[in-house]
Amino acid sequence: MLKKITSLQNNEVKWVLQLQEKSRNRRKENAFVVEGRREIELAFKGGYEPINIYYVPEMIAFETVMELSKLNPEHGAEITELSDAVYQKLAYRSSTEGLLAIFKIHEFKLEDLKFENKNPLILVAEAPEKPGNIGAILRTADAANLDAVIIANPKTDLYNPNIIRSSVGCVFTNKVCTGSTLEIIDFLNSKNIKIYSASLQASQNYLKTDFTGATAIIVGTESTGLSNEWIENSTQNIHIPMEGEIDSMNVSVAAGILIFEAKRQRNI
Amino acid sequence: MLKKITSLQNNEVKWVLQLQEKSRNRRKENAFVVEGRREIELAFKGGYEPINIYYVPEMIAFETVMELSKLNPEHGAEITELSDAVYQKLAYRSSTEGLLAIFKIHEFKLEDLKFENKNPLILVAEAPEKPGNIGAILRTADAANLDAVIIANPKTDLYNPNIIRSSVGCVFTNKVCTGSTLEIIDFLNSKNIKIYSASLQASQNYLKTDFTGATAIIVGTESTGLSNEWIENSTQNIHIPMEGEIDSMNVSVAAGILIFEAKRQRNI
Repeated sequence: MLKKITSLQNNEVKWVLQLQEKSRNRRKENAFVVEGRREIELAFKGGYEPINIYYVPEMIAFETVMELSKLNPEHGAEITELSDAVYQKLAYRSSTEGLLAIFKIHEFKLEDLKFENKNPLILVAEAPEKPGNIGAILRTADAANLDAVIIANPKTDLYNPNIIRSSVGCVFTNKVCTGSTLEIIDFLNSKNIKIYSASLQASQNYLKTDFTGATAIIVGTESTGLSNEWIENSTQNIHIPMEGEIDSMNVSVAAGILIFEAKRQRNI
Repeated sequence: MLKKITSLQNNEVKWVLQLQEKSRNRRKENAFVVEGRREIELAFKGGYEPINIYYVPEMIAFETVMELSKLNPEHGAEITELSDAVYQKLAYRSSTEGLLAIFKIHEFKLEDLKFENKNPLILVAEAPEKPGNIGAILRTADAANLDAVIIANPKTDLYNPNIIRSSVGCVFTNKVCTGSTLEIIDFLNSKNIKIYSASLQASQNYLKTDFTGATAIIVGTESTGLSNEWIENSTQNIHIPMEGEIDSMNVSVAAGILIFEAKRQRNI
């Protein structure tokens, strides 16, 4: 018989809650929480190792849980039943899926990035602030099948529940890694990948820029733009011409326009 | 001497609060709240008529308020000082700008839309759910200098504080109007504007689509897509090819990619 948790005072419940709350706790425990069937499936497919799987028998069939579980036949995760009340306490979003899992953190490092593509297309986002924007960027990167997404000087870890949710699990389907701006510049230079920094400074129209070689597109924050290191180490600064009252687009929209222009050029 | 409000119990304070809270209240009073200097400036420039201007003398100079106020020399708005405590209660976001204004609602109707451009480029968003997405779409529309943005079957009014904030005031710089899906289809047909509905159904690659004529690009919600009326009345359904695990992009990102491809074709 499976273990069942019915008390909100249970220590495991408290453990899951603190994993959701703080980046620091996730780092300390080397674990993070994933909610929802699709997201958990993508975490499995992304090679993440489950530690615990929690489900509410009244909400999701045990067979469905087992099917997901078979995506990694060798996993040693414990499967635990939750009462509805405990699940409602743990569920981060208002969902009725009845499924949560804890996975081990598996951080990709810059040096782990291997490119199958001779001319990789990479997005670098420097210090993005809003989980919603990071999620939207990761969905775009998935759709474009980018060779990597690199977060420079991250302000939060990637396993923030809001990022997982707003990326609809694309944080697991992309090759995502993090690093300092200087580390990333060194890495790109060592691989002869051209750096196209989105910046108004001495920049050229993105439509006049050739993205068909090995390309990294760099976007900064909406409030302060890119740091000087990017501008100074740019192969070419680029911009999207703006014709309105306000000289600023949402960062995930701008990234999408630049990435899909690069895709267009590569598919002509 | 200017009127000064220092009590949180003041009836005018309650009036402003309820305008921020509910669409229904804004409609009833035919008024809405704008916060922040840049946003208020854009509302003035967009031809909105101010009813009240509130400022905190310790946070913003009276001269600055008067300068803004001159953007509409004939306005009859009352200028009122607020104590810091009252402002903190009314300020929707954590800002230290010390400036709020109430404007009259001025809704643009479909029949008011006049196009200077022989081949207008229009975005229609059907029933967008998240204020953040509407805001991002309005920023893109401003940058692209679209001829109009039309919200079909809106789920909220445009004067929701979250939309004003996330659009950084672009709700005032665009020609934005609302209507039912059927009204909008009739309008577009009457003007011979081609309808390109973003939908996977019988659709063609957006890069193979000619957007140089009079064009309306239609995007739906992320959860349910476009309603059948759009699909049935489409000149051509279009899609952005996706190569990832997840067949969905953020709606404001997808709209940005489509709009800027249309812009690219028009500028060749």
